[in-house]
This record gives sequence, structure tokens and C-alpha cells, in this order.
Amino acid sequence: MNDSSPPTSANTHTQFTLAELAQRFQLECKAAPETIISGVAPLHRATPGQLSFLAQAKYRSALASTKASAVIMDASSAAEWSGPALIAANPYAEFARIAALFEYQNQYETGIHPSASVHPTARIGQHCQIAAGAVIGSHAQVGDHCIIGPNCVLEDHVHIGTYTRLVGSVTIAHHVNIGSHCLLHPGVVIGADGFGQAWRGERWQKVPQLGSVQIGDQVEIGANTTIDRGALDDTIIEDGVRIDNLVQIAHNVRIGAHTAIAACVGIAGSAVIGRYCLIGGAAAVLGHIELCDRVIVQGMSSITHSIDKPGEYGSAVAAQDARTWRRNLVRLRNLDKTLRELLRGK
Amino acid sequence: MNDSSPPTSANTHTQFTLAELAQRFQLECKAAPETIISGVAPLHRATPGQLSFLAQAKYRSALASTKASAVIMDASSAAEWSGPALIAANPYAEFARIAALFEYQNQYETGIHPSASVHPTARIGQHCQIAAGAVIGSHAQVGDHCIIGPNCVLEDHVHIGTYTRLVGSVTIAHHVNIGSHCLLHPGVVIGADGFGQAWRGERWQKVPQLGSVQIGDQVEIGANTTIDRGALDDTIIEDGVRIDNLVQIAHNVRIGAHTAIAACVGIAGSAVIGRYCLIGGAAAVLGHIELCDRVIVQGMSSITHSIDKPGEYGSAVAAQDARTWRRNLVRLRNLDKTLRELLRGK
Amino acid sequence: MNDSSPPTSANTHTQFTLAELAQRFQLECKAAPETIISGVAPLHRATPGQLSFLAQAKYRSALASTKASAVIMDASSAAEWSGPALIAANPYAEFARIAALFEYQNQYETGIHPSASVHPTARIGQHCQIAAGAVIGSHAQVGDHCIIGPNCVLEDHVHIGTYTRLVGSVTIAHHVNIGSHCLLHPGVVIGADGFGQAWRGERWQKVPQLGSVQIGDQVEIGANTTIDRGALDDTIIEDGVRIDNLVQIAHNVRIGAHTAIAACVGIAGSAVIGRYCLIGGAAAVLGHIELCDRVIVQGMSSITHSIDKPGEYGSAVAAQDARTWRRNLVRLRNLDKTLRELLRGK
Repeated sequence: MNDSSPPTSANTHTQFTLAELAQRFQLECKAAPETIISGVAPLHRATPGQLSFLAQAKYRSALASTKASAVIMDASSAAEWSGPALIAANPYAEFARIAALFEYQNQYETGIHPSASVHPTARIGQHCQIAAGAVIGSHAQVGDHCIIGPNCVLEDHVHIGTYTRLVGSVTIAHHVNIGSHCLLHPGVVIGADGFGQAWRGERWQKVPQLGSVQIGDQVEIGANTTIDRGALDDTIIEDGVRIDNLVQIAHNVRIGAHTAIAACVGIAGSAVIGRYCLIGGAAAVLGHIELCDRVIVQGMSSITHSIDKPGEYGSAVAAQDARTWRRNLVRLRNLDKTLRELLRGK
Repeated sequence: MNDSSPPTSANTHTQFTLAELAQRFQLECKAAPETIISGVAPLHRATPGQLSFLAQAKYRSALASTKASAVIMDASSAAEWSGPALIAANPYAEFARIAALFEYQNQYETGIHPSASVHPTARIGQHCQIAAGAVIGSHAQVGDHCIIGPNCVLEDHVHIGTYTRLVGSVTIAHHVNIGSHCLLHPGVVIGADGFGQAWRGERWQKVPQLGSVQIGDQVEIGANTTIDRGALDDTIIEDGVRIDNLVQIAHNVRIGAHTAIAACVGIAGSAVIGRYCLIGGAAAVLGHIELCDRVIVQGMSSITHSIDKPGEYGSAVAAQDARTWRRNLVRLRNLDKTLRELLRGK
Repeated sequence: MNDSSPPTSANTHTQFTLAELAQRFQLECKAAPETIISGVAPLHRATPGQLSFLAQAKYRSALASTKASAVIMDASSAAEWSGPALIAANPYAEFARIAALFEYQNQYETGIHPSASVHPTARIGQHCQIAAGAVIGSHAQVGDHCIIGPNCVLEDHVHIGTYTRLVGSVTIAHHVNIGSHCLLHPGVVIGADGFGQAWRGERWQKVPQLGSVQIGDQVEIGANTTIDRGALDDTIIEDGVRIDNLVQIAHNVRIGAHTAIAACVGIAGSAVIGRYCLIGGAAAVLGHIELCDRVIVQGMSSITHSIDKPGEYGSAVAAQDARTWRRNLVRLRNLDKTLRELLRGK
């Protein structure tokens, strides 16, 4: 298997001059504004025609030997660099914006694919792409410039804003509202019933979930992530939230604006997460608690109480060789007993 | 983004008198049986025409100020309430049953959507809805009153009982049997191969999974949950089981009747879980062990040995501020060594 | 629900003589080569016409009473067995190979189902089955003898080798390369964007993921597993890797050949896993670290540092009764403080 070839998924037919990029992204161009840029790459791998970036001092050595046609860097780095450059206070973020120009776009025709099923009462906006096998239910509304990818399912009364893309195989349950400029990756499920079950003494009684899900603008949701509808009130994902893959967001959770949640996290029912939080991969947040703004949860941690003070919290146990861990685990399982003995002052 | 509007997903065209509800659910109606109920809401948010419930004493204050047209409560609460009420020993469970009347039903036509692919040898029962893009394989059997939602896939020889609903984008592998009155949420995968791999010394040999999956009646399975087929015998989910989202049930597991499993749980191969168990979110159960009936597993716990005594078990570590946890973790990783020193009687 | 009936999913129309099986799999046949084998079963449940296996000494008692028509066993066991047998050094692995002959094959017709959408520029190999609802994008290439199951989605420029099967409801994003003899279970998502987000001071900037995913030959990927495309370089899954369900493989991870990963594992971005590793269920591996070959990670462990020594590593805490665990947890959360006191020599 040949994996040394350069990545081929970038769109290579697009090209811009440094001057065009500078103007478009309001950056200063130092030297050679006519330089043609037709792709991006990291410093150590870039070839002529490609743009690279310097965001950390530790990569300066790569800068000296790079074959990139131009590099994005901050002003102090540019003072020591004689080649073509774009100057940015946040080189990594600006590189990200420029890289988006070279992102591959699947060739879907504008309009509704013949194999899509769109209910007569659904309203599809201008310049939308409704791909093969998509199913759109009654009274659904899809705003202008949306992409509904192959085999997506939108149930009745789903509302989607503008410039939102459902990549493919996404399922949105009835009455869910999704904002504009959102990106939902394959396998996402929004609006499935929250896990409401009432015990009747000998069996479970399903509690209908009559709420919905509200998703704001500029939200990105990773593959196979599930966000459940609320029991009576809605589950809410505020603007700018970024959620990774295989995340579970239970019913009646609220995720504050611009919070980022890494993969495999579980947020239990009615938890409220503040704004600008970072939730590390595989962490779990208990239900009915509240995290204030700017809380950082370390990966694989278990948050069991409300947090009202910004900062970093964790409880993951870092692995050791199995032999050492087995001994430590035995001690842990007897810790209270052992410490009582010791504290009694033997 | 406006999230203060009341949830709109409940079906608002349905209405009943209190008397009708009382008769239908065999509850006592206290006062004003002619009261019209057209929806449900919690006490603090209810408006005229809505039914609410009182299930916990701590919400009595909300009862005093509610605008609900009627409230479900137990007999002792009703003695102190002068308004219209329905009396139930288990107000929450009865509220759940009534709320189901107001649940939204997607507008699928009865019958088989033109874009569905149904094998000529498949047998579809009476009053079924087979939605757009559904694929049903040879010799599959779908019982009366089932809903097979958009883009579901049923492979060959799948048998489904009556009144079962696959919401959409559900995949059922060949020869799986699913009972009646079941509800499977989007992204569920039933009957994928169990993880059988035999090591041949230099590479893996896949072990074919020739068993199947048997799912009983009244089972609910959450979004993106996976239940694998057995190696030679079947994987079994007994009647009344409730499983949340993103749960993994490995090959040859048996889940006892009426057990509830919260999100992100993993149950490894050949584990046997008893009846009436509760498995907390993100917990993991090792393979080839057995849990007796009425075991409660706390969230994020690791069950590594069989449990033969009902009760509650756990091992999750609750998070602390990062600084404190780092110190405790260092101690934990050296615990055996440190305790040996101390126990030697320094 | 009747779950005592024998599994019915094995293909029962296939049959072979012991001699045929011996020749096909290059095994020695001891006694009665004309014995007809039409299925497989474990020793305790086998009936005449079925083949069983003995791989562990502890099952010898089942051997004495088995009704199987023949048994696979090693040479020393065969010396003490008078019935029909196939002799193999690795009885379990050979049983697995033979069992594959009896595996059920869904009845898809060769060719392209009328409801599939295949772009005119896509190239489909010989003897392929493209099932109902499959969507194949522009310039995609599917090698000979592949099965693309119902409702699968292949975006533009996807390349798949020969004899590879996507069971159903699998989504492969643009430019992903998948090798030959692979098996991808339902709900798998390959090539969704890695979780690249750059903080701009007040909001997130999405970092386009311009790399791809390279999957080798003989790779098996379990249901609802997600493998993300790289940021600039590719995410790489080497030959012979076996991945279970609900696993997250982040962008720019490399998984070494013949490594096996159990369910619910999360591997964070840019981690490198060596060859012949075993990663236990629900474990998590931090980003940007490297595991050498032949590392065993115990289930539910948190790997936070690179490992350069083969062996077994772990950090899972085994559950106890809730009361005992609560006491131990209180001690753990105060461990540093308590040990400091004790070490100061009270």
C-alpha cells in the first residue's frame, strides 16, 4: 500500500496570487505579490506553488529549508524572512481560512436529484443541492445555499437555515431547528427521543419526548454523534459550538456558545454547559449539573458536580505497566481500610 | 436564536376531555370532567388547555401557581387540591401514558413508498408504512402495523413482529428477529458480525458469526447503538429492555428482561446481564461474566467480575481541579510502594 | 420469546465431505472421509451432519459426548479420538476458515440495482453487486468482486480494491482509498473531517481537512466506527487491522499492521499505534504519542504517554460495591494530603 504519495484530495484546479489572498483575507503581503498559490502544505513537505505557515517557534528550522512559494507568519517572524509571505497575528487561523479555498467540493448538481424524495409541502431554498436518496418530509424548510447530501433524512417540520451542509447519511427528526452555516458529518442523528423511561413497578413506561432540538449558527457536529430531543423543553446547542465524533448529548442539555467537545464524550440529561468550555475526549458529565463558562474538562474525566469556577478539572488515571497497576489497584480497592489502620497510628 | 418559544413538536390538533382521559387510562377524575386537554406541559410552564403532573413534593409551590387546566397527582395531593385533577398512584408514569397521545406522527402514507425497494419474496403485514428509500430483503417478514422509516435496511430473512417502528436509517442484518411493540432509533445496527478474530501467528483469521440476534417485545434501542450477532449461538435482548444511544452490545451477550442501559455503555462478548438491572452511562462490562438480577452499575464503572448479589456497584473517579488531581494521581501511581513503606512501620 | 431454537442464519444448503474439506484447507483427515458436513456447531450442541472443534483441553468432556459428525482437533487430541476428525495445529483458526463456507450470503443480484445512483464517470469492476439505494460519486472506482450494500454512500474519487464488502449504510468520503478483501460493517464513516478547529480569540475557525484516509488490505471495521481524514497528511490503517464497533480513529492517526482494536476505543489525533498491538475495549489513547509494536492496552485504560516497550499496560479501576467504593474514592480524592501527613511520620 503506497502511502507516501502526497494527499490528492485537495482541489488542485484552484489558484490565486498572493495579492489576491492578501486582499481577500485582509493580510499584509510581503514581497512578490504575483506569486501563484495553488495549494497548501506543511513547511517540511511543501513544493513550489504551495503556501505554508509558521505558527510555532519550534518549526523555524523547517522554515529555513522549505520549498513553499510563500509562508504565513506573524510580523516578528516576517522581519527575519526575506521570501514571499503573508503577515497575520494568528498565522494558524489565517492558514485555515485560506486552506478552505482548496477544499474539495463533491460534484453534486444544484437542484434536487431524481432519486431524492421531497414532500410536496417541503420548501427548498435557492441554490440548494439535494443529493441522491435524500428524503425530506412534510413542511420541512431548507434555506438557501444548503447541501443535503446523499441518503440524508429530514423528518416533518425540520427547519434548516442557510449555507448549512449535511454531508450525507444524516438523520434529523421532526421539528428540529438547525441554524445557518452549520456542518453535520455522516451518521449524525439529531432529535431522537431522549431516554425517558418511567418505572411502573414491573416494567418500563416510555416517556414521550415532546420537546425538540435547537441548533444555532456556525455549529459543526462530528460523525455518528447523537443529540436527543427534550422531554418537554428543548435540547439546545448554541452558536459556534464544535462537537467531534461519537458524542452523546442527552435530552434537555444546553451547550453554551463556542464550547468545543472532543470525541466519545457523554453529556447526561439536563446538564448545562457554559460558553467557551473545552470538554476532553471520552469525558462524561453527569445529568442535572451546571458548568460555568470557560471550564476545561480533561479527557476521560467524570464530572459529577456542578462547577462554578473557570479552570481545569480532571480524574483520568494514566496507565502504567500492568504489573505495577495491578498492585496499585489492589491498594486502591482497600485504601480506606489501609489508611484507617495507618491513621490510627500504628 | 430564539429558544424561548414553547416547543412546537407536540401534535396540537389532538384534544380530549378529562373524562375521556380518565376512562381511557382508568384514572379517577376529580372535578370538571368536561375540561378540554389539548397538550401537556410542566407545572411552571403550562397554559390553559394543558395537562401537567405533580410527582414530587418539592414541586408543590409550582402547583399553587400553575395555569394548567388540570394536573395528575396522587390521592393525598388531590385531597389538598381543589382544581380539576386526575388521580394516579404513579403520577409520572400516567402522565407519560397520556403524553403519548400528543406525540407527533410523521406523515408517511400507509403502504410502500415508490422509492422503497422490497424484495418480491418479502412479506409486509397490514397497515404498515414502508417509507422512502427503505430496502427490504428476500424472505423478510414485517408484521402488521409496523413503520419502517426512511432509508432503513432490512437484509434477507429478517423477521419483525407487530407495531414495531424503525424510525429511519436503521440497519438490520440477515436472520435477525425483532419482536412486537419495539422502537429502534436512527443509526441502530442490529446483527453486524461479532468481533471474532482468531490469531494465526502472523495475521488474523476472521471467525464467521453464524448466530443471530433475538430481540423480544417492548424493547427500545437508542440512536447509533450496535448489537452484534452471535458466533454460533444468538445474542439475546429480552422483553422490555430499554437501551440508550451509542451503546455497544457484543456477540453472545444476553440482556435480561426490563433491564435499562444508559448511553455509551459497552457490554463485552458473552456477558450475561440479569433482569431489572440498571447500567449507568459510559460503564463497561467485561466479557464472559454474569450479573444477577437487580444489579445497579454506576456510570463510568468497570465491571470485571461476576456479581451474584443485587445492589449498587461502582468505580468511577469523580473529577477534581486539575492541580489537586495531578497530585492525587501521582500518589496513586506509586500507591503500592508508598503504602509498603508506611506499613513497614516507619 | 423462543430462544432455544438453533440458529438459523447459517446457510444450510451447502455441504461438503470431510475429504473435500481436508483437501481445500490442507488438513489431514482421520477416518471416514466420506462423512457429509452441512454445518458447524460447538461440541455440546452439534448434531449429526455438523462439524465441531476442540481448541482447549477443558472442553474434552464435551468431546466425549458430542453428536457432531466430525471434529477438528490437534494431533495429540486426535491420537485419543477414534471418530472422524480433521487434524490442525490451530483448530480454532481452521474451524473459522471452514465455518466461512456456511456463512449466509444476502441475495443481491450481480450488477447495479435500479435504485442505486452511480455517477457516469464512476468505474465499477467485474462481478460487483451494487445494491439498492447505493450512491457512488464521480470518478469513484470500485474493484472487481466488490459488494456495495444497500444505502451505502461513496463520494467522489473514492477508490476501493477487489473483493471488498461494504455491508450497508456505510459512508465513504471523497478521495478515500480502501484496499482489497476488506469488510466494513453498517454505519461506518470513513473520511469525515478530522476535528480541526483554530481559536480566533472569540470564536472557532474550522481548519479544513485536506488529507485523506488510506486503508490497506484485509481490514475489518465494525459498525458505527468513525475514521477521520487527515488535516494535510493522511490517516492510515495498515494491512490486516481489525477494528470493532463504535471506535473513533482521529485525523492523522496511523494504525500498524495486524493491530486489533476492541469496541468503544478512542484514538486521538496523530497518535501512532504499532503493529500487532491489542487495544482493549473502551480504552483511550492520547494524541501525538506513539506505541511501539506488540503493546497490549487493557480495557478502559487511559494511555497518556508514548510506549516504547512491548508489554501490557492498564489503568482501569475494577468496580466494588458502592459503599466500599465511596469510602475508597473519598480517600483517593484526599490521597496526597493524607499521605503527606503519614509520611511526615505521625
